[in-house]
Amino acid sequence: MKNTFGNNISVTVFGESHGPAIGCVLDGLPAGIEIDMDYIDHFLTLRRPAGKISTARVEKDPVIFLSGVYGGKTTGTAITIVIENGDTHSADYEDMKNIARPGHADYTAYAKYGESRDARGGGHFSGRITAAVVAAGAIIRYALEKKGIKIGSHIKELHGAYDREFDDISSDIDALNGKVFAVLDDSKEEKMVREIEKAKADGDSVGGIIEGAIAGLPAGVGEPWFDSLESMMAHALFAVPAVKGVEFGAGFAFADMYGSEANDAFRIEDGKVVTETNNNGGINGGISNGMPVVFRCAVKPTPTIFKEQNTVDFEKMENTTISPRGRHDPSIVHRARVVIDSVAAIAVADLLAQRYGYEYLR
Amino acid sequence: MKNTFGNNISVTVFGESHGPAIGCVLDGLPAGIEIDMDYIDHFLTLRRPAGKISTARVEKDPVIFLSGVYGGKTTGTAITIVIENGDTHSADYEDMKNIARPGHADYTAYAKYGESRDARGGGHFSGRITAAVVAAGAIIRYALEKKGIKIGSHIKELHGAYDREFDDISSDIDALNGKVFAVLDDSKEEKMVREIEKAKADGDSVGGIIEGAIAGLPAGVGEPWFDSLESMMAHALFAVPAVKGVEFGAGFAFADMYGSEANDAFRIEDGKVVTETNNNGGINGGISNGMPVVFRCAVKPTPTIFKEQNTVDFEKMENTTISPRGRHDPSIVHRARVVIDSVAAIAVADLLAQRYGYEYLR
Amino acid sequence: MKNTFGNNISVTVFGESHGPAIGCVLDGLPAGIEIDMDYIDHFLTLRRPAGKISTARVEKDPVIFLSGVYGGKTTGTAITIVIENGDTHSADYEDMKNIARPGHADYTAYAKYGESRDARGGGHFSGRITAAVVAAGAIIRYALEKKGIKIGSHIKELHGAYDREFDDISSDIDALNGKVFAVLDDSKEEKMVREIEKAKADGDSVGGIIEGAIAGLPAGVGEPWFDSLESMMAHALFAVPAVKGVEFGAGFAFADMYGSEANDAFRIEDGKVVTETNNNGGINGGISNGMPVVFRCAVKPTPTIFKEQNTVDFEKMENTTISPRGRHDPSIVHRARVVIDSVAAIAVADLLAQRYGYEYLR
Amino acid sequence: MKNTFGNNISVTVFGESHGPAIGCVLDGLPAGIEIDMDYIDHFLTLRRPAGKISTARVEKDPVIFLSGVYGGKTTGTAITIVIENGDTHSADYEDMKNIARPGHADYTAYAKYGESRDARGGGHFSGRITAAVVAAGAIIRYALEKKGIKIGSHIKELHGAYDREFDDISSDIDALNGKVFAVLDDSKEEKMVREIEKAKADGDSVGGIIEGAIAGLPAGVGEPWFDSLESMMAHALFAVPAVKGVEFGAGFAFADMYGSEANDAFRIEDGKVVTETNNNGGINGGISNGMPVVFRCAVKPTPTIFKEQNTVDFEKMENTTISPRGRHDPSIVHRARVVIDSVAAIAVADLLAQRYGYEYLR
Repeated sequence: MKNTFGNNISVTVFGESHGPAIGCVLDGLPAGIEIDMDYIDHFLTLRRPAGKISTARVEKDPVIFLSGVYGGKTTGTAITIVIENGDTHSADYEDMKNIARPGHADYTAYAKYGESRDARGGGHFSGRITAAVVAAGAIIRYALEKKGIKIGSHIKELHGAYDREFDDISSDIDALNGKVFAVLDDSKEEKMVREIEKAKADGDSVGGIIEGAIAGLPAGVGEPWFDSLESMMAHALFAVPAVKGVEFGAGFAFADMYGSEANDAFRIEDGKVVTETNNNGGINGGISNGMPVVFRCAVKPTPTIFKEQNTVDFEKMENTTISPRGRHDPSIVHRARVVIDSVAAIAVADLLAQRYGYEYLR
Repeated sequence: MKNTFGNNISVTVFGESHGPAIGCVLDGLPAGIEIDMDYIDHFLTLRRPAGKISTARVEKDPVIFLSGVYGGKTTGTAITIVIENGDTHSADYEDMKNIARPGHADYTAYAKYGESRDARGGGHFSGRITAAVVAAGAIIRYALEKKGIKIGSHIKELHGAYDREFDDISSDIDALNGKVFAVLDDSKEEKMVREIEKAKADGDSVGGIIEGAIAGLPAGVGEPWFDSLESMMAHALFAVPAVKGVEFGAGFAFADMYGSEANDAFRIEDGKVVTETNNNGGINGGISNGMPVVFRCAVKPTPTIFKEQNTVDFEKMENTTISPRGRHDPSIVHRARVVIDSVAAIAVADLLAQRYGYEYLR
Repeated sequence: MKNTFGNNISVTVFGESHGPAIGCVLDGLPAGIEIDMDYIDHFLTLRRPAGKISTARVEKDPVIFLSGVYGGKTTGTAITIVIENGDTHSADYEDMKNIARPGHADYTAYAKYGESRDARGGGHFSGRITAAVVAAGAIIRYALEKKGIKIGSHIKELHGAYDREFDDISSDIDALNGKVFAVLDDSKEEKMVREIEKAKADGDSVGGIIEGAIAGLPAGVGEPWFDSLESMMAHALFAVPAVKGVEFGAGFAFADMYGSEANDAFRIEDGKVVTETNNNGGINGGISNGMPVVFRCAVKPTPTIFKEQNTVDFEKMENTTISPRGRHDPSIVHRARVVIDSVAAIAVADLLAQRYGYEYLR
Repeated sequence: MKNTFGNNISVTVFGESHGPAIGCVLDGLPAGIEIDMDYIDHFLTLRRPAGKISTARVEKDPVIFLSGVYGGKTTGTAITIVIENGDTHSADYEDMKNIARPGHADYTAYAKYGESRDARGGGHFSGRITAAVVAAGAIIRYALEKKGIKIGSHIKELHGAYDREFDDISSDIDALNGKVFAVLDDSKEEKMVREIEKAKADGDSVGGIIEGAIAGLPAGVGEPWFDSLESMMAHALFAVPAVKGVEFGAGFAFADMYGSEANDAFRIEDGKVVTETNNNGGINGGISNGMPVVFRCAVKPTPTIFKEQNTVDFEKMENTTISPRGRHDPSIVHRARVVIDSVAAIAVADLLAQRYGYEYLR
């Protein structure tokens, strides 16, 4: 279904940037999962525009639970998460309704919905909806952590600036989830921020790569074919606005490898099957092998830039130019990571529930 | 569902490498689509092991339709495609049932299914199932072509050997679909084949990158969120064995780009909205924009290699080594491309049917 | 999925009786469908408790659209309908939290959700959620009517009091949709109301049968097997609280018929295929045949009655008695009909969209 | 999806009456479930046309497993069940291809599929497909029985002849599953058979009511709304050809009851919550309450009768008459019961897997 993901644990997103609210329905969780508001707020804060390197839209994102939560716990029924839209400036967008902003979905929304679409602020295509997904993801992540499964990610690359590799994944995840700017090596932050600020000064924007990891996932999760762990995770990850590439383990680097380099030798360690390398990113044949799941997402540069660009008025069908005004993020890479972790958590929880039932997460 | 993909037009795969047969059920097509056996056989041939650079298993793959086809046309009901397994040598695999072949799904299958799995020849994880998917894909591709939508792909890279870029995508697709070894620049074939032969001589294997394109897809196909064109295609593509990365348009290269480079300027051309570049791979906000959809898949080296590797006996829980025998492909990159095109076709047809109904493909 | 129905056009319900709000997400409608608030309010009024024969809970049910509606029309994205819960008296229910009200879901909710369920006022099992379903159904019914498809139902039986049969179904539907108390023969209303009032005076309640009809549905809608028109409608109808039986056409009366009586002879009439009788209720082989779809739903007596009943405290695991207090409906039959029509509309629209695409309803 | 039912444990049916084969794919079962061929054959025998009161088509129904079974057990992958079509007489049907048999799906198939449908012997609408569903159901029933859950049904009514009520449901189920003609009171068989033979002598047919029961289902299975136990069971039951009504517990009899009669008082018995009556058929609020689930299906008279009937040639659009020849069943009621039990088993297993995971059935 269009706005719904997941078979057993599912999330249905809704909302438009300048409508009354955005939100989602999280269905399929068992009763009794604690709703830790501090935990949820923490992840919402990580997604929130941060200071001078992000958009001027002030988002406080107070999360309202319309259903499914009672006495601080899930009730087992559908959880409806709503975040109201307060600080909107529709007028910023009104006069360019039929002018396609390059890299945005204005023209495709028109091709799909025609005249009746809500074009204000990107409408349903707005990244703002991801706030609700982060809240839903946080509830699931909290439950997964009780099972020893944790998720985190870092900015692997931001326009030519690189973070270090994952080392001890479990402690790296812990560290990352405490950081506003998610780099493993804090000394790399400065260069990345400089790249963002340079782009901002030029009215431009930059892209990057988010690398995520899931630690503690038991072996045997995922299905050989269409519900492979990779298929389900990629389905969810490509739903995140601006994600244009997803890879697992060595990913595209496999193209240059020999099988003898690519294969991960198995070994018994502490009575457990492990692999000596992790080129397969913790997944063989679509199923988790007990090693950390490692994946990467390409995040394209924010399409809104303050430079004149050639484009069209798709209603008049004539060429024109556009020089966007309004608020914009010179980079969303550092904000996207928590969204990426959230949808990864939903995909993993859904597959766990498929095997063990939704009771498993209780 | 585990072995099923698609909401309106769906495919359900089944079968084990050394069981009676492999196949799939293709459901949701309208009545009256012509079943062109030559067309189907053509694509099955492209998937078939080719000469000395591929596995010695002789697959003639005669496709049997158990249902849904009558008088040379689809009847509108579920189409069941079966390919019987003839030339199997189960004994090749029997003695290593509990020894995990590195890079394979032996251990994860055990973690998931335990003692009762069918471990012979990779069981349900065998690439052989892709033959049925190719047959299903061919039926859909035939129908899509009648609508002006065509799909093709080439070996973008094979272990350091590169093909040229797509140029005129429509004629490139036509040329590729006629070739056994899918390179746009025929002069590149030799180097790629040499890489494969070198790997083979070493008892090793190589990976590569398949780049695919869809021409003629109208603007407005796909959904903003979870049924985005990227999400649905990636879901299907990651189900193909050995695919470990998927990207659209510039993909991971976005990480090094400025927004001003990444954005695709719009322009009116021949009364149609086009983009000057196609970094977004024909997709904005999850929806097709009328430009060719361009995507890339990382294909890992065949895990079966004829070198001794460290591994474990996961039942005895002890370390051991393995030196696989039997048949193997030093590369499946050149064979995977037609599988990749097939699942891409299924994903696109499903989304078209969502918007226009299954009658659209009639 | 638990709270979601429909493949192409879907509705996801949420909410608890005494939580902040109830509502639903209606996804899959095309852009441009008019939102006629008067039309929606009309059907909400029909569902609303009416005067002395219904519950004292005052429901004004102001419908809030959180998403998917702009400028008085659908935008093509997910429509979120919310109705806030105002007039709640949780204390009425608190002290009997662990005492199973016979006929209610108290014990099954405990068996399923345990301690963390929201037991107040029936929680997620409350009939109040049907208000949101009626609003969603009204949007769809408005669109269906533009296509010449209309739905209506009457109280066929209420505790031994019977309405007349359908006659001219199209005009009968029109008449019914204008009536607060849905009987075809107005002279039957008095006896039915008397039955309800008698039950009320006794602290008791009564059940009945709702008979619905769909006029104007073209032949060829529905699928032979699991998405049969009957399967999909019954799936949705049995989701309506208190519905315990669903039949199409002659239904259970087929048990006493010969095939020669049961078969509906075909005939050409005004250049159209019609049947002389309609024992099959407009459906052959799971597919509409162009005749009116006729179905019946058994609605059980409201389980809340003001009589002492034997029951258990399921936490203490001991026998006890209960004499419910609070508000209650001596009958919900007359209110249920608009809910029944609404879910029937959703099922039919979903199957229409499957064949013709969601664009069909535009 | 059209031919697929179930979210976690799913069945996809395929095949045409006179095509190469019919069958189904049963997906989602765990590995290690024993395939007891005698058990499966037993239920196939119960479905098979029995002697002089049924069709002359000889069905031996040898079940072929194309996948998912190895070493006498499920492997955890998709199980493909195929039954080849041998004894077909297509010529019997050819000349009446465009003449709608009253009560059959000939015209609706034409309205849906047009010229390209497979009209021979009812095509995909043939009751023969139910043989594969019975085989799939038998695998599941075998696994459910290991969990203490068993399913059986009897002919409650056959054209005015009635069986006795259920008494001790557990032992009644055991007895029924051993009987070819499923009546609880064997003395009722004669009258029912006489009704069938009388209909047969008249070239006519009769309908009836199948009453089924599920014993041993734990409390807490099913969901409050769209995946209610009633919704899921009814969805599957209405997919069975000829089923035109489904009710649970008192069903349509609720219409004449007071709440004080209808409510099932709870009581503690042997440390377990039970109800004194079972008017709700073991289901409250869509969720099992631990009492036997009791349901009834109306089965319409076989539409094929040897009497002249008015009908149309829907291609020529002219009135005509039809006097069917060929084989026919004067009643399918006694054969339908095992199909009904099978789909009920699939629905229940799917909901159990939703709560407890597919591992539950291992």
